[in-house]
Amino acid sequence: MTEKNRRPLIFVSNDDGFYAHGLQALIEVVEKYGDIIVVAPESANSGMAHAITIKYPLRLKQVYSKPGITFYKCNGTPADCVKLGLGQVVPRKPDIMVSGVNHGSNASISVIYSGTMGAALEACLNGVPSIGFSLLDHSPDADFEASKYYADIIFRQILENGLAKYTSLNVNIPKVPLKQVKGIKICRQTHGSWRGEFEKRVDPYGGEYYWLAGDLKNFEEGAEDTDIWALENNYVAVVPMQIDFTAHNVIDPLKYIEDIK
Amino acid sequence: MTEKNRRPLIFVSNDDGFYAHGLQALIEVVEKYGDIIVVAPESANSGMAHAITIKYPLRLKQVYSKPGITFYKCNGTPADCVKLGLGQVVPRKPDIMVSGVNHGSNASISVIYSGTMGAALEACLNGVPSIGFSLLDHSPDADFEASKYYADIIFRQILENGLAKYTSLNVNIPKVPLKQVKGIKICRQTHGSWRGEFEKRVDPYGGEYYWLAGDLKNFEEGAEDTDIWALENNYVAVVPMQIDFTAHNVIDPLKYIEDIK
Repeated sequence: MTEKNRRPLIFVSNDDGFYAHGLQALIEVVEKYGDIIVVAPESANSGMAHAITIKYPLRLKQVYSKPGITFYKCNGTPADCVKLGLGQVVPRKPDIMVSGVNHGSNASISVIYSGTMGAALEACLNGVPSIGFSLLDHSPDADFEASKYYADIIFRQILENGLAKYTSLNVNIPKVPLKQVKGIKICRQTHGSWRGEFEKRVDPYGGEYYWLAGDLKNFEEGAEDTDIWALENNYVAVVPMQIDFTAHNVIDPLKYIEDIK
Repeated sequence: MTEKNRRPLIFVSNDDGFYAHGLQALIEVVEKYGDIIVVAPESANSGMAHAITIKYPLRLKQVYSKPGITFYKCNGTPADCVKLGLGQVVPRKPDIMVSGVNHGSNASISVIYSGTMGAALEACLNGVPSIGFSLLDHSPDADFEASKYYADIIFRQILENGLAKYTSLNVNIPKVPLKQVKGIKICRQTHGSWRGEFEKRVDPYGGEYYWLAGDLKNFEEGAEDTDIWALENNYVAVVPMQIDFTAHNVIDPLKYIEDIK
């Protein structure tokens, strides 16, 4: 079979674990477009960002295999799943990678903590165009109808038209029924940060401990080109991400330090 | 005491853990400039990136306190240490935050996996100017003389002159004696990625497992404005980092997706 005629190879991962409903929803969207290899964490990995595992060895276990899809779980992080999948599992470089559908938002600065986007970025920095999908609903039984509808549209466009090299899409879907979604907005990451972040408790033995909590503070309320604005107005928010983290405009102002003795 | 007269408050963390020599070296550099609060992980957290802990509660334990320095350890990730420190420990917003000195490089794409820079970015996104320091030597007993000399220069400049808001510096120090360091280069993140990443082994029971390994592939050998070039030429590499990960130049080319039904 020639390169042009063969079915696309689609790599899939997530951060909620191999049993998550969001992962199943995403597989249902993409399986009609090609052959699928899934490598997903064996346990929940929310908040793992781009963490990788160096303290203990990784193991890979096949969950099932049927025509068109091979499904593995791995004891590592989302980024480990992608590294191990691309390095040890795939028969050739995948045409595209998808991550999710995450149960919960990865908009604004939440992206920096996101295992879903950690997996997607690991694919894109290896030259595989990637898309991470997140639904603004933490429930394990969230309704993925709108996510599936819009994931299909966005996935098909990127599969057909490609994506700028070494970029990834961070797609967030509002928590409303499909009929209420107004459409898609291509936007930028909202400037914000998490505030009031800890709940302090005392254990039965008198020891203090803390649970991470808090709310996302939006530093640019009303900015219509941001992902938070899009989501608040019932649009699917699509933010293209890059892997060069340099603050290029800050290089020249710092050059004076080169002359300090 | 007025705001202007009081000693700066300096927040310190790292990813190698509270007992690491690199952390001690960094404290020795900054303690003469102000009052210090350290919150460092109680165990090694290399490769933890910007991971945060949501599965189990966090605990904070004072290691020691003496005039001018209070030192805590925490059972979380580097980013947790900074979140918990800024949220629950500091008496006021610190004037500056430093992370490291890491035992090992965080140049080029390694920054995406870096717990050292995860901690530094967590501070900068909370409005605290931050600097992460890394020495290109993994040894627990590495020689930190050059690191201390250049950390002092860079720290003093940022303390006195400030840093563009919501940016952080990723500083890497070459593994050569102080006398051989040629100076400081302000540069950009080298485009690269890790290759050949796994070593496959078989356990005594016949099970396969994988160790993360591999080498960093430099996609732009010889580019004199990159951090890898600076380090290969015995310069200290300083890369300013930002927390907006949007690929702004890719927004317009993707706008066509907004019109797909």
